[in-house]
Amino acid sequence: MTRRCAVALVHHPVLDGQGAVVTTAVTNLDVHDLARSARTYGCTDYFVTHPIAAQRALVERIRAHWLDGSGGRRIPDRREALGVLRVVESLEAAIDRLGGRSGGEVWATAARTLGASLGFEPARARLEAVGPPVLLVFGTGWGLAPSVVQQADVILEPIVAERGDYNHLSVRSACAIALDRLLGKR
Amino acid sequence: MTRRCAVALVHHPVLDGQGAVVTTAVTNLDVHDLARSARTYGCTDYFVTHPIAAQRALVERIRAHWLDGSGGRRIPDRREALGVLRVVESLEAAIDRLGGRSGGEVWATAARTLGASLGFEPARARLEAVGPPVLLVFGTGWGLAPSVVQQADVILEPIVAERGDYNHLSVRSACAIALDRLLGKR
Repeated sequence: MTRRCAVALVHHPVLDGQGAVVTTAVTNLDVHDLARSARTYGCTDYFVTHPIAAQRALVERIRAHWLDGSGGRRIPDRREALGVLRVVESLEAAIDRLGGRSGGEVWATAARTLGASLGFEPARARLEAVGPPVLLVFGTGWGLAPSVVQQADVILEPIVAERGDYNHLSVRSACAIALDRLLGKR
Repeated sequence: MTRRCAVALVHHPVLDGQGAVVTTAVTNLDVHDLARSARTYGCTDYFVTHPIAAQRALVERIRAHWLDGSGGRRIPDRREALGVLRVVESLEAAIDRLGGRSGGEVWATAARTLGASLGFEPARARLEAVGPPVLLVFGTGWGLAPSVVQQADVILEPIVAERGDYNHLSVRSACAIALDRLLGKR
């Protein structure tokens, strides 16, 4: 009926404030907030992608604390959210888990207009139709590197407010808003 | 033309996981994320309310780092976001700054249905009409205490997703989504 949706948070390759391609560090609340948003909006998976093994191990440790450790006993709702978390080394690995490039679609997000983009309304309609899984990709730092955006099947339009043209949302907020626009109850 | 909107984040009185009324600690990313969302959606003020002086001093220190210190020089966009941050001791103090109970409206938010609530669509229409300032109030912990909700002029409907009935969003995500539903570009 509706298409399978998943979220990916990319730590490399992303941009820094000067436009250089960098690798960012894991932020604990990115792990939590995006898992909670993904689970709330019915996404089946939330992939934290990081090329550095020690950073992946850190996320696995957070995951274990909430799935098997005392965290989950204290806050069962949080255990359920962290249940959608998967830790992988790259965006390609996340795509593979969803069925590969030919078996799914990669939808990139950006805070600025980067060429032809798909509006949230038509994107929402596409998710309600029959189709392959969709991986919604968010960048840390100053956003996804051009190499990721260029390989995406879809670029979602930037999030814009009614009043003014300032846009400096956190990735935690941007992901929540994008999921709500695509999958929120109307 | 459109009504003035402001955001308040309440650390007391809020509920804990067992339903007791407690005071929560300040979370750094709550300070940042809600300021960034408030500024992006054109809110004039973001009130962090905390009854404990040492916690208010901590938030003032974060604010100074970004407004006057090295943080703002490194990331000017962040300085602009933190410019809407105000630190006050209570929700009443925030209301006073907006013109008092008689000069503004308090709109409470909740993750669960708490009596008669206003839908986001009619709420959005109200914000586009002429009227006094609106203070959108969010709770930390397990949400606003009943005493806050009961004194509100409006209770906004809970955020619900299209798929499933699990709802365990962070306050950072919930605030972002609420602002987008009320003030996002359509």
